[in-house]
Amino acid sequence: MRRILVIGIGAGDPEQLTLQAVRALRGTDVFFLLDKGEVKSDLTRLRREMLDAHVPQGTYRLVAARDPERDRGAGGAAYSPAVGEWRSARAGLYERLIAEELGEDETGAFLVWGDPALYDSTLGILEEVLARGTVTFAYEVVPGISSVSALVARHRTGLNRVARPVQITTGRRLAEGFPEGVDDVVVMLDAQQAFQRYAGEDIDIYWGAYLGTPDEILDSGPIAEAGPRIERLRAEARARKGWIMDTYLLRRRPHDR
Amino acid sequence: MRRILVIGIGAGDPEQLTLQAVRALRGTDVFFLLDKGEVKSDLTRLRREMLDAHVPQGTYRLVAARDPERDRGAGGAAYSPAVGEWRSARAGLYERLIAEELGEDETGAFLVWGDPALYDSTLGILEEVLARGTVTFAYEVVPGISSVSALVARHRTGLNRVARPVQITTGRRLAEGFPEGVDDVVVMLDAQQAFQRYAGEDIDIYWGAYLGTPDEILDSGPIAEAGPRIERLRAEARARKGWIMDTYLLRRRPHDR
Ligand SMILES: C[S@@+](CC[C@H](N)C(=O)[O-])C[C@H]1O[C@@H](n2cnc3c(N)ncnc32)[C@H](O)[C@@H]1O
Ligand SMILES: C[S@@+](CC[C@H](N)C(=O)[O-])C[C@H]1O[C@@H](n2cnc3c(N)ncnc32)[C@H](O)[C@@H]1O
Repeated sequence: MRRILVIGIGAGDPEQLTLQAVRALRGTDVFFLLDKGEVKSDLTRLRREMLDAHVPQGTYRLVAARDPERDRGAGGAAYSPAVGEWRSARAGLYERLIAEELGEDETGAFLVWGDPALYDSTLGILEEVLARGTVTFAYEVVPGISSVSALVARHRTGLNRVARPVQITTGRRLAEGFPEGVDDVVVMLDAQQAFQRYAGEDIDIYWGAYLGTPDEILDSGPIAEAGPRIERLRAEARARKGWIMDTYLLRRRPHDR
Repeated sequence: MRRILVIGIGAGDPEQLTLQAVRALRGTDVFFLLDKGEVKSDLTRLRREMLDAHVPQGTYRLVAARDPERDRGAGGAAYSPAVGEWRSARAGLYERLIAEELGEDETGAFLVWGDPALYDSTLGILEEVLARGTVTFAYEVVPGISSVSALVARHRTGLNRVARPVQITTGRRLAEGFPEGVDDVVVMLDAQQAFQRYAGEDIDIYWGAYLGTPDEILDSGPIAEAGPRIERLRAEARARKGWIMDTYLLRRRPHDR
């Protein structure tokens, strides 16, 4: 039976690999490296450096493929259908890769940024491949340090306050309104800096970009003060590198609680 | 200047240590091991085994202390004040430990279960110690694999669904009502099995106890079916071991989304 490992590799710092992930890397015959195009080639390079650092050369094969592009042109309304088509194009690709590149008794691995549990489609795609029924395999997930954990560790703060909840959401959703029932909100996948909408409220922001990498940038403070700084830092960094990955925690200040 | 490391050690599996955590362990002069009493001595043992596995003996000192007990007698209403007093008793203890047991140029470490960012008081206590102003130190946080990441990895599912939010909350809060605005909720610190209240709804539960340890138990399914099984498994395990640590994800099934 073929075996697939979905390995969380941490959010940028190669030292965020767990011992379990290192062991999983060493037990892998075929690594599937899916490339999202040239701009994020730093990320592809980081994956290869991890393999070089932890796995003896000659003990594995690398299969690189180009991940189908998602059609982002259609904007907000088309979000779900576009994602659906994109996932099924990816399922077709993964199915072919597994069937053609992985021997019957071999172990293949997908290296996933951060923790495979957060805003990553690999698990959903593997389920879709299994549902198609043309190729069978067992699969396991190796959890990783998410960018969320990395963010708050660098800011030396917790995700939640004592006995209170925390929500993790997207920039798109934050742009629609502050989530109900929570005062602590982590925002990922925010291309529009949705936090700006809340500059008039008593909210602190803890922001981080390229966390764990040599390019890491951190900033924090009341949104009204830190927001404009973050906007500037973000625009500069993005212009310099051609891409940005950032995430932040919004924490509403207590009034008379 | 004294240096303190708050090191996330994963939620039970010693292989969940990150390379960064191993390096931090090796750079530590004094480990502060706070013990919550005899029942959870498995956890204390696991910490010592990690040190034995990764740090040469004779390169560090161990300082064990008894963590002040929290007064749980007063029930729901007294939650916040009791927590406040308990935190300040702990701050006094930590202050004393750091001042008396750690040399001026030494590095001390607190080993925190899971990720220090989730429902853990260590960071808050260190801030309180610094605010008292009698002892100064620099401190850093090493993120860890949380029980939340471990839970969903074992169930091979994501925390969030595509483009949707997830909330992390406590059993106490879930008992008050299902969080607004989210269909995916992770529950920690639930001594009352608050999920039972939702047995009549279209909600799946993904449950795990003693995750990452040899005693790990997993179960999942619609609450109506899996709930009674989990209740039984939980009661049996708790009777057998004398304590239990469990967490779960509730996922509301989509209707016509
Ligand atoms: C597709 S999601 C994947 C998240 C990933 N699975 C994780 O656990 O971090 C990508 C988003 O994660 C966040 N992200 C990932 N890596 C990051 C990093 N090194 N620094 C800052 N944000 C990061 C950003 O919000 C980005 O838009
Ligand atoms: C005080 S909180 C600490 C959480 C920890 N910082 C983390 O990141 O997992 C304790 C709660 O975490 C959850 N927990 C911690 N370790 C666990 C494990 N090995 N298995 C299941 N639940 C666990 C339980 O819900 C428990 O009530």
